[in-house]
Amino acid sequence: MELVVQKFGGTSVGSPEKIMNAARRTIEEKMNGNDVVVVVSAMGKTTDHLVSLAAEITQKPSKREMDMLLSTGEQVTISLLTMALQAQGYDAVSYTGWQAGIKTENVHSNARISGIDSEKIKNQLQAGKVVVVAGFQGLADGQEITTLGRGGSDTTAVALAASLKADKCDIYTDVTGVFTTDPRYVKSARKLDGISYDEMLELANLGAGVLHPRAVEFAKNYGVPLEVRSSSEKERGTLIEEETKMEQNLVVRGIAFEDQVSRITVCGLPSGLSALSTIFKTLASHGINVDIIIQSSTNSSLASLSFSVKTSDVEETVHVLETYQSELGFEKIESEGGLSKVSIVGSGMVSNPGVAAEMFDVLAQEGIEVKMVSTSEIKVSTVISHADMVKAVEALHDAFELSQQPAQVL
Amino acid sequence: MELVVQKFGGTSVGSPEKIMNAARRTIEEKMNGNDVVVVVSAMGKTTDHLVSLAAEITQKPSKREMDMLLSTGEQVTISLLTMALQAQGYDAVSYTGWQAGIKTENVHSNARISGIDSEKIKNQLQAGKVVVVAGFQGLADGQEITTLGRGGSDTTAVALAASLKADKCDIYTDVTGVFTTDPRYVKSARKLDGISYDEMLELANLGAGVLHPRAVEFAKNYGVPLEVRSSSEKERGTLIEEETKMEQNLVVRGIAFEDQVSRITVCGLPSGLSALSTIFKTLASHGINVDIIIQSSTNSSLASLSFSVKTSDVEETVHVLETYQSELGFEKIESEGGLSKVSIVGSGMVSNPGVAAEMFDVLAQEGIEVKMVSTSEIKVSTVISHADMVKAVEALHDAFELSQQPAQVL
Repeated sequence: MELVVQKFGGTSVGSPEKIMNAARRTIEEKMNGNDVVVVVSAMGKTTDHLVSLAAEITQKPSKREMDMLLSTGEQVTISLLTMALQAQGYDAVSYTGWQAGIKTENVHSNARISGIDSEKIKNQLQAGKVVVVAGFQGLADGQEITTLGRGGSDTTAVALAASLKADKCDIYTDVTGVFTTDPRYVKSARKLDGISYDEMLELANLGAGVLHPRAVEFAKNYGVPLEVRSSSEKERGTLIEEETKMEQNLVVRGIAFEDQVSRITVCGLPSGLSALSTIFKTLASHGINVDIIIQSSTNSSLASLSFSVKTSDVEETVHVLETYQSELGFEKIESEGGLSKVSIVGSGMVSNPGVAAEMFDVLAQEGIEVKMVSTSEIKVSTVISHADMVKAVEALHDAFELSQQPAQVL
Repeated sequence: MELVVQKFGGTSVGSPEKIMNAARRTIEEKMNGNDVVVVVSAMGKTTDHLVSLAAEITQKPSKREMDMLLSTGEQVTISLLTMALQAQGYDAVSYTGWQAGIKTENVHSNARISGIDSEKIKNQLQAGKVVVVAGFQGLADGQEITTLGRGGSDTTAVALAASLKADKCDIYTDVTGVFTTDPRYVKSARKLDGISYDEMLELANLGAGVLHPRAVEFAKNYGVPLEVRSSSEKERGTLIEEETKMEQNLVVRGIAFEDQVSRITVCGLPSGLSALSTIFKTLASHGINVDIIIQSSTNSSLASLSFSVKTSDVEETVHVLETYQSELGFEKIESEGGLSKVSIVGSGMVSNPGVAAEMFDVLAQEGIEVKMVSTSEIKVSTVISHADMVKAVEALHDAFELSQQPAQVL
């Protein structure tokens, strides 16, 4: 008998019919003789509906009251899913985040889980019940309802799996697994049988969107084996676990990409230790996320600095920097929109120094200009023109032979 | 400075616009220098929507999961109303039932409040905040979310007012107060300035619908002065308090009526002590509410028993009784539908023995046959044909001069 944590996202519980379908997934595990804890998100459009209600009241709702409002979404789902299980003759009980013992920091709208008191869940499992828990929410000091921010339900599921020492954590979603690249753009994209935590982290951060980075990081830290799989189809999904258990340490496992990228260039920046830190601290304090950063240091006293941001943040970025122009002493700011980021990810890269060069070679052969580059041990990211994005992804997918099933290494 | 508890029902918070209107009512009290605790119901159609979601899953949802589901309704309202107050610059905080310290019995769907730990609310009031509390819900042992059943939000408001020793409890609704009779049927119906708890209890029980009997009983027991008033219009409402403070001990204060009444007659019932108790225990155990009961004892050994039930309960009532026919030994059951109940209520009746006679006289003059009668110290109820209902109410309203403002008694 194993202990399985299942997580169903918003689209997988988007209607009473889909909730009954999710219940069937849970019942399959019970019929396999396993104990099951289920974590659910709010039903499909519920969160959007609640957000729009708040927007009719005020443009600046307090974070505490937004948490109070949004946390009702998962509470609706847990009750309906539990009813569905009971209607099929299975003993089940629903818990909100606070009832399930999910404790968080004293922060609203983006709290991190600080601990889980899982005694109650353990007792209910012992009594043979399916325990259905509201994802995305917890309780801070003073009995305050908090929410975990984006990807919160994934994080709840992984944290519960870690706390309960579950044998696995299955993330049910509207795709059948993690792909070598986005199959909506690249026909030959292939579903991966397995991927390492680190590779998934890079892919998740790079916009693959299937699983939140916080949840992957949590799973990695606590060694929780994850499987991303479809809530509507029966086929096996993609296992996410330590590299040592993986099929092969592939040089390139997948290709991630995102558009709506812009490049900001600060020209004529006086050299000095504090300018960089001032710029990025200021941007961070305005909630602007900077991605790739490149500084071209020259022999002269004036340097130029480039970085990429989301296109929707360009206007505010330029405005914030201009406010500090006299303090920072730069000459001018330039911005370029219409860009995309294309990244190759694979844990085998660390021992294959030629991978970046091969990527640049492929792009050059396609006549694609690389505007920015950033590398880590297991990825190479390039910023290119948005017009070239799909062509670049297809060429790289071909060149690194991602559509072919890798040979098993014995 | 007074402490005021305000309660807004579902129609008074049915949309973001109405919630902002409710917030203005709260702000008026704050501007009068008063402390305010606000109790709210779920928004208009929310409960119906949640019930229909559950119905798509199962026809027999467990009461625990229904409480889990329905309690989200008020949680949405408290957050939105608090946002509305904050947007107007007022410090406010929302609490669910469990956060507000509302403790109940260990019963789902119809729990009674067993106690209130109001320390947290008192502290927030002390800090100058408006406290917005979810009505209709509480917490039982084992951190179980419970709901209070029909009229639950009224009860929450009155219980909080009692616990906090509030100076008054204002029930905001979609009518301007309590009327001598239903103004939709009788044009000359007049809004009452005041009414006693006992009269209101009879009127509430008799279908006036404006305030739940449980809440009135609670208010009476703890001496909480209630005012029923309109959330959309500024005029004064109806005060509900002890008779001693009232304008006058009126013989008849109001006329209540309801249709969909049926009479069941059990013929040829052998006399004996246990038959009556068996019949009504059995019906109660099937959730059938019996209203007026009349037994005609004769000299023979066979008696006949009549009682009134809601027309929607007739079929099950007959079925249940027939199941026990051999045990009870009666001859046959007759039922008559298409009836209505018309009642006059007034605390002055207790010292005016001729009131019932006057009522029958008025009905006789109108050619209306009285099929059943039931009296208490402050009311006389009659069951008549539904076709005569409105005619009876109008004639009684005229005869007891209810459309005229009573003279002040010095």
